Amino acid sequence: MKVALAQLNYVPGDIGYNTSKIISAIGRARADGAELIVFSELAITGYPPLDLLQRGELITRSMNGVKEIASHCSGIAAIVGGPSPNTGVFGKSLHNSAFFMQEGKVRAVINKTLLPTYDIFDEDRYFEPGNTFQTVELNGARIAITICEDIWDEQPCGDRGICRLYSITPLDELMKEDPRLIINIAANPFSHNRIKIREEVFIRNAVQYNRPLITERKGYRCPPPLPEDMTGLIHRALVTGIRDFFLKSGQKRAVIGLSGGIDSAVVLALASEALGAQNTLAILMPSVYSSEHSVSDAVEMVKNLSVPYHVVSIEEARQSLENTFRPHFADRAPDITEENIQARLRAVILMAFANKFGYLVLNTSNKSEAATGYGTLYGDMIGGLSVMGDIYKTEVYRLAREINSSGEIIPPQIIARAPSAELKPDQLDSDTLPPYDQLDPVLFRYIDLERSPARIVAEGFDPQLVEDVVKLVKGSEFKRRQTPPVLRVSSKAFGSGRRIPIISNYDF
Amino acid sequence: MKVALAQLNYVPGDIGYNTSKIISAIGRARADGAELIVFSELAITGYPPLDLLQRGELITRSMNGVKEIASHCSGIAAIVGGPSPNTGVFGKSLHNSAFFMQEGKVRAVINKTLLPTYDIFDEDRYFEPGNTFQTVELNGARIAITICEDIWDEQPCGDRGICRLYSITPLDELMKEDPRLIINIAANPFSHNRIKIREEVFIRNAVQYNRPLITERKGYRCPPPLPEDMTGLIHRALVTGIRDFFLKSGQKRAVIGLSGGIDSAVVLALASEALGAQNTLAILMPSVYSSEHSVSDAVEMVKNLSVPYHVVSIEEARQSLENTFRPHFADRAPDITEENIQARLRAVILMAFANKFGYLVLNTSNKSEAATGYGTLYGDMIGGLSVMGDIYKTEVYRLAREINSSGEIIPPQIIARAPSAELKPDQLDSDTLPPYDQLDPVLFRYIDLERSPARIVAEGFDPQLVEDVVKLVKGSEFKRRQTPPVLRVSSKAFGSGRRIPIISNYDF
Repeated sequence: MKVALAQLNYVPGDIGYNTSKIISAIGRARADGAELIVFSELAITGYPPLDLLQRGELITRSMNGVKEIASHCSGIAAIVGGPSPNTGVFGKSLHNSAFFMQEGKVRAVINKTLLPTYDIFDEDRYFEPGNTFQTVELNGARIAITICEDIWDEQPCGDRGICRLYSITPLDELMKEDPRLIINIAANPFSHNRIKIREEVFIRNAVQYNRPLITERKGYRCPPPLPEDMTGLIHRALVTGIRDFFLKSGQKRAVIGLSGGIDSAVVLALASEALGAQNTLAILMPSVYSSEHSVSDAVEMVKNLSVPYHVVSIEEARQSLENTFRPHFADRAPDITEENIQARLRAVILMAFANKFGYLVLNTSNKSEAATGYGTLYGDMIGGLSVMGDIYKTEVYRLAREINSSGEIIPPQIIARAPSAELKPDQLDSDTLPPYDQLDPVLFRYIDLERSPARIVAEGFDPQLVEDVVKLVKGSEFKRRQTPPVLRVSSKAFGSGRRIPIISNYDF
Repeated sequence: MKVALAQLNYVPGDIGYNTSKIISAIGRARADGAELIVFSELAITGYPPLDLLQRGELITRSMNGVKEIASHCSGIAAIVGGPSPNTGVFGKSLHNSAFFMQEGKVRAVINKTLLPTYDIFDEDRYFEPGNTFQTVELNGARIAITICEDIWDEQPCGDRGICRLYSITPLDELMKEDPRLIINIAANPFSHNRIKIREEVFIRNAVQYNRPLITERKGYRCPPPLPEDMTGLIHRALVTGIRDFFLKSGQKRAVIGLSGGIDSAVVLALASEALGAQNTLAILMPSVYSSEHSVSDAVEMVKNLSVPYHVVSIEEARQSLENTFRPHFADRAPDITEENIQARLRAVILMAFANKFGYLVLNTSNKSEAATGYGTLYGDMIGGLSVMGDIYKTEVYRLAREINSSGEIIPPQIIARAPSAELKPDQLDSDTLPPYDQLDPVLFRYIDLERSPARIVAEGFDPQLVEDVVKLVKGSEFKRRQTPPVLRVSSKAFGSGRRIPIISNYDF
């Protein structure tokens, strides 16, 4: 059986666009001689539609889209993901469904049985689980259709590790009809530390049920080996993320504050790759505390990339604010206030360029900074998109070397220089934070693996270090609540996948 | 039977504090001769604990708290809400439970059966529903214990109105044991437009099952009538919200940018009432576009309240930025950029006062502005807390009159003046937005009632107006993603209760 796998780029909520895209792929697959084409989970609505699913108009349009798509299925069958109405008296009004289409008609509607409701997933908010099981027949072969979680039998459960969430296993039910093939449609977000687990789940199911298993990416019998180092994949994911965010939000051009440090250098390189150098603008905003090197390094960097740039000093504005505040602050020594004023003036400048010329500001904070609150709210924490909010500082270095692997883009002295915010004389990140090679492993265990401080200490980390880190994380929830959306590349990113009250008191 | 109802103020995550508070209330109730004391849902963890529930340490400490509380139950019984471990093989690792305690021991653990997973509620994320039913006995009387949603048989379902989510009704099961009394523990958030519905549900249950129904607030047989106008209640809710937010985040003092408009005047009055005039600071930040009246009215206002204030002109900083931008913007006419620069300079000033003297900035945006994106990101949209982000502009006027009802606090000319951002000459809100008395009813139907644009038009609203409003709401999701947490007083506030993708394309 020749099966086409369509992994397309949909727009959440834009049923018309998604429907056309699906129909045009059906045409191409038929021309290529495919008997079946498989689209991903919730393809018709785009993923994730979130509360748009609660609007009646979405389901009306989506079901019209289903009808239209089905009418194009002559000479080829299709499996298309989308919501379908729950016709029962009780429960959420929708199912998360796979429509099996053949000869112009919808032949079967398969409802997702197991609904993920953890991390970024909120499917119990929208969908009623299916509880009936049926295979479909195509050209004499029975096919078991499953939707994502349906083939997962274990899931992460906070710091209690892995647990079994569901008492039934849809494939056990479906196998009673002896299908020849298992198909799993999904809309899995990219996550560099879940790729291996996902592969294992696919392989385990294919082996256990002794059937070929097809997902939207490939068929699982003998999958190719995964790379040891995921940095290359992360690089591609971030470039794709930037490009996609701009495309779908109708933006073309990015502006970035280039400090001479490694974070903004990496973001500039990624933006330039995603959008083109001519659509990327660097703003250098030196102050009296900027080292000469950081300015000359930043200039070398933009020249390497052929990215246009401006040098906009914050000095005059900083001094005028100093004058403004003098009568009010006169008796107070300079402190974090004056540092924040510099960071916030830079934000005012970046936003002014964005407003005046139609740029979107890219945020350059990394995950270590976001986790510890090492950044100025309404200052360096601003932007329309956080490119590296899910990349720890130690990973930023790996990313920088990966970016330079096919030719020097980021000047080596930028990579080599000790991290500094340059907001007061001779300032270093290590004045305030533990060294990143000590900080990041603790953050990774606490945030990503959701391990308790006690367990992290038991693993051999310094108790004082762990206590300090947990305190920083807890004390900066209020900042993370107001930061830009983050490109998620790990299994636990800041944003809707991690929900901690701002108003709380805990030490675990 | 003498029953004490304890509606206490808990801190999410602070098991030690909450446990002490519960134990001390048990002592007082016993001294007052109560046979039973009832605490609210998830009292031990505080509400909402969110993802803290996924940390193993929380449940360990919480169960220790349960043991300790139970040991204080001699001569009095107690019902206390808290998580309990799910001992089954499958499912989420916790139940949302009520512990029935008597004579030093936990006599029964009742698990919540119906788990709300809509709006701000995410209980399916954390809890496994209970599926067994038992009443408890106290001094010869059987009692049916239920937890919040357990007695709700219908719920809002987006623009499809009301639907039945659950196929079982816990009270039907519990009544088989013929209890004499129904108790419902809950942790309902305040919502001025749900109060009536909640009362109706309590009454309906009490009548249907012909038993007295006790909730954490009162017993339902003949409840007192509700006020026609909720403005007084909203006023108290906002003052409570400000006070509570400051208390629990360890803050004491608020700083507010006072423009001479009604929004900041109302926020200043509320803050002064919540925190005390001496803990409230007003900053007047006039520019060349500020009318003389707005400054003198603001001064009159702070004098009415005896709130300290500073006048900090943004003029010098604005002009220095004009100089800074001149070489870059020279050929461009002034536009929204220059307006935003003023709003952002005011934010820099407020944050500098906050940083230097330890204030928390209160945001003064209202729900109409938040809904339409009428505000400057990193400008007037900043703050540690949005006091009125759930109050439409037309409601702000009612609130202002309510605040003035026991003596003039807000000068009448502030209430009377046509709304203006004063960011360019002779600017009025109505240059950009529909008049608020036309805008707000459409926003209320679209946001709060989740009605479709087509239905709102069918109700008689101008189609062009509805289309324009929906476009504004849709186009400002990215702004709302970065705004401060909002004090929720309605049934649909911006924040976690309303989840719309930033990246999307829809017109419904």
